[in-house]
Amino acid sequence: MTKIKNAFYAQSGGVTAVINATACGVIETVNKTKKINKVLAGQNGILGALNEDLIDTSKESKVNISKLKQTPGGAFGSCRFKLKDPIKQKKEYRRLFEVFNAHDIGFFFYNGGGDSQDTTYKISEMAKMLNFPLKCIGIPKTVDNDLPFTDCSPGFGSVAKYVATSTLEAGLDVKSMAETSTKVFILEVMGRHAGWIAAASCLASNKKEDPPHIILLPEIPFEKRKFINKVKSTIKNNGYCVIVASEGTRTKDGKFLADSGLTDAFGHKQLGGVAPVLAEMISKIGLKNHWAVADYLQRSARHLASKTDLTQAYEVGVQAVKLALKGETGVMPIIKRLKDSPYKWTTSMVSLKDVANIEKTMPKKFITKDGFKITQAGRKYLSPLIRGEADTVYVNGLPDIALLKNIKVKKKLNKVTF
Amino acid sequence: MTKIKNAFYAQSGGVTAVINATACGVIETVNKTKKINKVLAGQNGILGALNEDLIDTSKESKVNISKLKQTPGGAFGSCRFKLKDPIKQKKEYRRLFEVFNAHDIGFFFYNGGGDSQDTTYKISEMAKMLNFPLKCIGIPKTVDNDLPFTDCSPGFGSVAKYVATSTLEAGLDVKSMAETSTKVFILEVMGRHAGWIAAASCLASNKKEDPPHIILLPEIPFEKRKFINKVKSTIKNNGYCVIVASEGTRTKDGKFLADSGLTDAFGHKQLGGVAPVLAEMISKIGLKNHWAVADYLQRSARHLASKTDLTQAYEVGVQAVKLALKGETGVMPIIKRLKDSPYKWTTSMVSLKDVANIEKTMPKKFITKDGFKITQAGRKYLSPLIRGEADTVYVNGLPDIALLKNIKVKKKLNKVTF
Repeated sequence: MTKIKNAFYAQSGGVTAVINATACGVIETVNKTKKINKVLAGQNGILGALNEDLIDTSKESKVNISKLKQTPGGAFGSCRFKLKDPIKQKKEYRRLFEVFNAHDIGFFFYNGGGDSQDTTYKISEMAKMLNFPLKCIGIPKTVDNDLPFTDCSPGFGSVAKYVATSTLEAGLDVKSMAETSTKVFILEVMGRHAGWIAAASCLASNKKEDPPHIILLPEIPFEKRKFINKVKSTIKNNGYCVIVASEGTRTKDGKFLADSGLTDAFGHKQLGGVAPVLAEMISKIGLKNHWAVADYLQRSARHLASKTDLTQAYEVGVQAVKLALKGETGVMPIIKRLKDSPYKWTTSMVSLKDVANIEKTMPKKFITKDGFKITQAGRKYLSPLIRGEADTVYVNGLPDIALLKNIKVKKKLNKVTF
Repeated sequence: MTKIKNAFYAQSGGVTAVINATACGVIETVNKTKKINKVLAGQNGILGALNEDLIDTSKESKVNISKLKQTPGGAFGSCRFKLKDPIKQKKEYRRLFEVFNAHDIGFFFYNGGGDSQDTTYKISEMAKMLNFPLKCIGIPKTVDNDLPFTDCSPGFGSVAKYVATSTLEAGLDVKSMAETSTKVFILEVMGRHAGWIAAASCLASNKKEDPPHIILLPEIPFEKRKFINKVKSTIKNNGYCVIVASEGTRTKDGKFLADSGLTDAFGHKQLGGVAPVLAEMISKIGLKNHWAVADYLQRSARHLASKTDLTQAYEVGVQAVKLALKGETGVMPIIKRLKDSPYKWTTSMVSLKDVANIEKTMPKKFITKDGFKITQAGRKYLSPLIRGEADTVYVNGLPDIALLKNIKVKKKLNKVTF
């Protein structure tokens, strides 16, 4: 009889409000099956495997594992670290398999975006080559919603809900101030290459005159004159103007607006931010404005998570384990939409070979002809993803989060530096 | 028998997540009494009275009036408009009393911060002088928490809860990224003269190593070297650093950090933002960082309102009407703290003569000796104000808000321009 193997799980890239719900889905599913011993979580993503920093999740209480569903950030630490090409540099891969071997790891779950799926694919190929018994499953995660094949990426629905709600709320604020004070409000959101997050702000609007009045997407080249004219006409018609701008807003020649050319007294280039650049343009035409940069707040706002998103994030964790137990490797569970309204979805899977290095940007049919708004087709796609409110438990007025012990497994190998 | 008079209610200055709850308290209390006919709301604050733009709140459904409790922004519009000195310029005051007279207004409720209470006081004095039967009640509101005499200002508890929650959530995010990516996160919050809002972020921390690690307050002069050293030592001890900065952070000579001296290619001065200025300092010492500017999001986030704050905001509206009915004028209801833990409070009142033009900054005993943290005494004061979660109803994944008809009363006077 073969020994029951352990599973390795790690979080990679930018974290989300619900990535820990996926971790919870993986761990709870593993804990239910007798075919996998336990989950060892990599501390700081793949680095945890390379450095043999493995967290023993079986040392955590059931209550704390369950509370991962209500905890933003990456509970085991994440990383931005890309494995080198396995042909050119074998050292990293050799080490990984040494660690997997030393700790009886037979299952590899990697939770991340496009780059991370590339890593998972490479490891799955290497395992086959080495004839090492390892089932490798990628688990989708990214607030950017730019993973291909899956209808949406876990993490996106919650940031979409945050941005739509913030646009609605701040829109009411600026509307009440506009008569004698602030006329224009700019909200900068994430999205360097794809405008999904900014697009989601459209859901705040029910009538033509509702905010947001202007959405700036990386997909649509920024033209200053057209933008300023749109601001002016919005003020004329509505009295105020709410703008939601993707951080990746750029001109026709690909130059990011956030790369503003601003310099300090010493000639040093100023750090980005598209909102202050737009604010300056608007100040120059004499309109009082305010701007906000949501940055990490948008992707960590678990208190406002979409229940749809949370449920899907948990489910891809569950499905990843099930796929591995079925003997699949080099695949990723995905979300498949069955119906827009009422929204129905299921899970399916895709080969990682096809996923790596494809970025899904907004389809043209989701953007209005003038480039400043989202079409009905776009709203139909986005709307179900923000629906439902994920339960949030508060203690002393603040969200109750999982405080894991994160006890590491004893190291068995010598230290290697990378 | 004297005719039953109407009440005038208006919103002034920066709006909050719960100012409409105060409006609701005023309107529902007036609707219950037989001693006041109805509430006419000023469109855009005192301008509504000057321009005879009066909204007939009796045309709204009970349901919509009740929904004001869950609607951020100023439902009748606010204004930044200060009445001129009544001695030097009588035109404005003459007009106000003409409008009050034309529309049978016997009660004046003005909902705002320090400047607005000054307006209310001037009007109450003028009414006495003219022997005009008008009961003038100021109603406290300001996210800045800088009104004197009241234990806290309605609007503050909710922004405090937003900032503490955002610090907790974004802190978990940066903690998980710190190993290979972002090491420092800066959150810029409101507070030009008083640091109450930034201070509230301290509630996110339970242990010494928890974020926020550095709080920058307008009360404590900013010293660059001391700040940079604190960032470095925090990184050394914790691996990451979360900073919450008041927009009013300034150096010893009173210069705002947000007034950064940055210029664009044309030599134009760049618009403020203390977070990007701090980010640049931190980049210069080689630490990868991210920054967020909460701006209007923090004061309009009704979805995360403190129940304590919402209840108090409603109650000062109720009390304002009750004080007027008791014959009081030139006064403001205030919140009085009876006990820290368990938190107990009641309402009281104060003369507007004493309120005008006093700004309550943070007491020294609330700030640690190094100027970067909040003491136990400060936490004791702040903690109860963020407690409890105000009910939020969602429709299609977004907060359900009151959509008022805002039907105006027919004008009876000639137009006057100011």
